[in-house]
Amino acid sequence: MWVKPCPDFSPEKPLFLCILANTETAKIPDISAAGKSPELTDYTPAADAELVETGNAISINEPAMTPSGAPSPAVLTRASMLLTGIPCIFINSGLRVRPQIPTIDLNCQAGGDIRKGHAVIDAHEIYRKSRALGEKLGKLSDFVIIGESVPGGTTTAMGVLRSLGYDGKVSSSFPKNPLSIKNKVVEEAMRNSGISFGSLRNRPLDAVECLGDPMMAAASGLVDGLDQKTVLAGGTQMVSVLSIIKHLGLKRDVSIATTCYVADDKSANFREMTQILGFKAFAADPGFGKSSRKGLAMYENGDVKEGVGAGGAMFAASMMGFSQKEFREKTEEVCDSIFGT
Amino acid sequence: MWVKPCPDFSPEKPLFLCILANTETAKIPDISAAGKSPELTDYTPAADAELVETGNAISINEPAMTPSGAPSPAVLTRASMLLTGIPCIFINSGLRVRPQIPTIDLNCQAGGDIRKGHAVIDAHEIYRKSRALGEKLGKLSDFVIIGESVPGGTTTAMGVLRSLGYDGKVSSSFPKNPLSIKNKVVEEAMRNSGISFGSLRNRPLDAVECLGDPMMAAASGLVDGLDQKTVLAGGTQMVSVLSIIKHLGLKRDVSIATTCYVADDKSANFREMTQILGFKAFAADPGFGKSSRKGLAMYENGDVKEGVGAGGAMFAASMMGFSQKEFREKTEEVCDSIFGT
Repeated sequence: MWVKPCPDFSPEKPLFLCILANTETAKIPDISAAGKSPELTDYTPAADAELVETGNAISINEPAMTPSGAPSPAVLTRASMLLTGIPCIFINSGLRVRPQIPTIDLNCQAGGDIRKGHAVIDAHEIYRKSRALGEKLGKLSDFVIIGESVPGGTTTAMGVLRSLGYDGKVSSSFPKNPLSIKNKVVEEAMRNSGISFGSLRNRPLDAVECLGDPMMAAASGLVDGLDQKTVLAGGTQMVSVLSIIKHLGLKRDVSIATTCYVADDKSANFREMTQILGFKAFAADPGFGKSSRKGLAMYENGDVKEGVGAGGAMFAASMMGFSQKEFREKTEEVCDSIFGT
Repeated sequence: MWVKPCPDFSPEKPLFLCILANTETAKIPDISAAGKSPELTDYTPAADAELVETGNAISINEPAMTPSGAPSPAVLTRASMLLTGIPCIFINSGLRVRPQIPTIDLNCQAGGDIRKGHAVIDAHEIYRKSRALGEKLGKLSDFVIIGESVPGGTTTAMGVLRSLGYDGKVSSSFPKNPLSIKNKVVEEAMRNSGISFGSLRNRPLDAVECLGDPMMAAASGLVDGLDQKTVLAGGTQMVSVLSIIKHLGLKRDVSIATTCYVADDKSANFREMTQILGFKAFAADPGFGKSSRKGLAMYENGDVKEGVGAGGAMFAASMMGFSQKEFREKTEEVCDSIFGT
């Protein structure tokens, strides 16, 4: 089955939101594959948004792929948006590079290196602004999917999960998860901020401020403002958002959808964490093992895995009646038009 | 009657959009009352948006009023949003000062002084981006109202109307319309750009590029992207947008709603122009003659008149069953909380 468990929603006015942010944490060498080099990860969220919207990354000339040559998960998200016609709106929650397409701007700063304290200087403010936005958008839609593009975001996710008291094993855009680097960075960050395992369990937004990234504050604020069925579209980064939601005591109809690549990643514990936190989880398999496109086949070996809400975008396509084959073929079509056949 | 003709729509998911822009044209002395001084008009759209959204102008310490002391029309718009609960989303189509609230950013430059050529360097690009945005938002709403906040915008409106071949007499935020200054500015601008009366009638977006402001490109692009009932909320500035829509040959379900202060302004020709252009027009009377608040009573003498979609906001309140008295009292409440009783 291409999405497990099979989604049984049939919304009238679905909306796909995708929250963009940068964090200096992404520039720590070998921590993120979401960009051709650590410095270029500044451009990745803007390029992802442009690619989903227009089929081309405008802000950067580099091809939208990992250093190893696997295409950005933005191609999966674009395929789903083209198939389903769901409106997709991007939210700038703190970027160094603004996308050249219409984007909701929360007017916030990009995140800092979590080792230096103050990862997010205005987490509470971002949360409030985003909640207000959620209240508005909630009046227009009966079903909201929230994705993200934040290079370096699994490391910040690990930091937040630990400070809330969870042994969250996070996934990676590399086939070989650089967990030892992430562990070292998070340990140094916790030491420098005077935080121990679980010490911020009652102050989740302070956890974001010290160890997180701006997307987390924006995503949890949105969920607070929305009062309809909501799906977080992402892997272990969105698990960290679930942990924030839980520790804020928010009672909302929230579930999570990711790719099979994250859900089945043995270096991470996505399924276990969603069970512990008590949220329903979906996993989508694009069936790229059957694809003749080399870049997509690389996903089967653990490249990229997830991002730009790709898992949730597949969930949406499935929900609206599109088959795995239709999705895969549309993704191939998108790839061909970007990278050539 | 407080809104004429009485609106007979009953939308399920109404949406209020308000397009913000700056133009250097506003800094020509004595041309705009939308700010305490010409230089401060840079802050007016941001402050208007903040006031509608939060009840306070955040980006500026100056009170949100004209030099003579009449409150910004943002108080009328806020009153309507509070009464109706319609979601209001602001669009930055080219600002010098970004509002400190979530805003859809088209990522465009502020407009220039129309006398110097190239009033809007990327009108076609703004139009395309805004059309794409309209296509998305149109999937979420069955009725869209589009307002604006552009200091200096009646002068750019005059320029565009003339270049499209209309003797559009534009209104003013001053009780005494500085028409001789506007005429001089527009004549100089047309001379410098080599444009004569009606010479751009087949190239309306070029008219915006030479003589207009960024809001016009954004508003007409939105209308192109939307395929549901749409109301332009504004006075003679929105008349210029109607003229652009007409000359682009767009066939859409568009009407216009303004205040009685613009509709009855004898120095302007709002009603005549909407008839010539062939669009249905509504006018709303807030009944401020009955208000004990001095600032609001000043509207009756021709101060401010319109802006931030105030006329369309009243139209919406009327459409949703609120009386003139309820609207006036809510506006007084908003004023009191901002300026004190």
